Amino acid sequence: MQTRNSRVRRVPGGDGADAVVVEEPLEIRVEGVPAAITMRTPGHDLDLAAGFLCTEGVIDGPDDITALAVVAENVVDVRLAEGVPAARARSADRALYASSSCGICGKASLDRLRVKSAAMAPAWQPDEAMLRALPERLRLAQPAFDATGGLHAAALFDAAGALHDLREDVGRHNALDKVVGARVRADALDFAGLGLIVSSRAGFEIVLKARVVGIPVVAVLGAPTSLAIDAAREAGMLLIAWLRAERFVVVSEPTH
Amino acid sequence: MQTRNSRVRRVPGGDGADAVVVEEPLEIRVEGVPAAITMRTPGHDLDLAAGFLCTEGVIDGPDDITALAVVAENVVDVRLAEGVPAARARSADRALYASSSCGICGKASLDRLRVKSAAMAPAWQPDEAMLRALPERLRLAQPAFDATGGLHAAALFDAAGALHDLREDVGRHNALDKVVGARVRADALDFAGLGLIVSSRAGFEIVLKARVVGIPVVAVLGAPTSLAIDAAREAGMLLIAWLRAERFVVVSEPTH
Repeated sequence: MQTRNSRVRRVPGGDGADAVVVEEPLEIRVEGVPAAITMRTPGHDLDLAAGFLCTEGVIDGPDDITALAVVAENVVDVRLAEGVPAARARSADRALYASSSCGICGKASLDRLRVKSAAMAPAWQPDEAMLRALPERLRLAQPAFDATGGLHAAALFDAAGALHDLREDVGRHNALDKVVGARVRADALDFAGLGLIVSSRAGFEIVLKARVVGIPVVAVLGAPTSLAIDAAREAGMLLIAWLRAERFVVVSEPTH
Repeated sequence: MQTRNSRVRRVPGGDGADAVVVEEPLEIRVEGVPAAITMRTPGHDLDLAAGFLCTEGVIDGPDDITALAVVAENVVDVRLAEGVPAARARSADRALYASSSCGICGKASLDRLRVKSAAMAPAWQPDEAMLRALPERLRLAQPAFDATGGLHAAALFDAAGALHDLREDVGRHNALDKVVGARVRADALDFAGLGLIVSSRAGFEIVLKARVVGIPVVAVLGAPTSLAIDAAREAGMLLIAWLRAERFVVVSEPTH
């Protein structure tokens, strides 16, 4: 359940019931060992686990996973293929993996970013009218947000403006990880010609996660941060902020 | 610097410069050992470190800290008084401490919450008109948000509606930790008769952090999550969501 009804008292208005977004912890285990606990909205938990491990650099793609399953309530366990160092997901880096789904990063994260970004697809030039139509498409595809006001959405979009793999979550980084995880599980990690739209602001971690998996175009509805802009520029990404039906702001674009 | 100017290209509008919120990592060390890295907006870093350690249950108050200093760029080191187990801030719990400033929690967090909440001050009944005036007061006191759209604010308020210890940050949990840290450093951790306002949604971690330090009244401008409501109700807190000049929604209040 993404939402539940909760008794409330409205001022003015009196007693009633509001739909609120459900938030519950998900423990992601690697080889049976807890690697991260994230506060998420239940649903697409396997996508979330697979995407988290991918955007955090633990796995490079579906071949690195041999099993992915819900093993208890709010617990997903991931088994890695031979040769994939499970150690990347724990011990020294454990703090990193627990944190990075939600706006915190470690130095290892920055280093990994620079290694990974060699695989970045070149940014493409989305049509301006298509971009400006995306917020309304996202809103129409996101009924739970209208009900609760508390869910972020992330989705891929193509050059024609079609949305793919839309996922929602109380956390914007989780929504992004669910999108990436859907593509990991579909063995479709080629993001050339695609963009990512996220309903939130663009912090460093949003750009980092997109960059690590090679998504060349990112559009957000909210504000960008300084470090998000720096990370996007360094990789030659197209980063669009404040996306609205009437306007948007390009804060990073490839230099030609 | 909380903001910086960034070259942008507006569509429509063309080239220009926008103020964007600054986001940089802060490493919090306990006794020289890295305990957390958080992406924060520079400023009030000592407040942030002290508040983080307090809302995470590492310290109970100012007496638990013997020294608090910036020891390198973006690094704060905290020395603990004899008898305060520094181990709480690292090793087994390290993942927890790295994560919990930003929406992730660990089981230890939930356990700590139940221990700590015994010290919760009883919720008081704020005047409705006073509450409805708070968002405008917060906005007027937050010039950087108007410039960047990217900064969260947190502040304490009293029964007369005066704001105290207002702090801003790209991360809402950091803003809250900075407020609490200001009170730790002022040795003023009695929150009876005070409330906390945060410009964001109310997730579990917001309520958890307020609850751990005994803030009995919390008001947010955005949506509440299911777990935030549960945590507030369990402690008998007054939790107000969707606070506006015209209206608000009480989602948790003490049962009498």
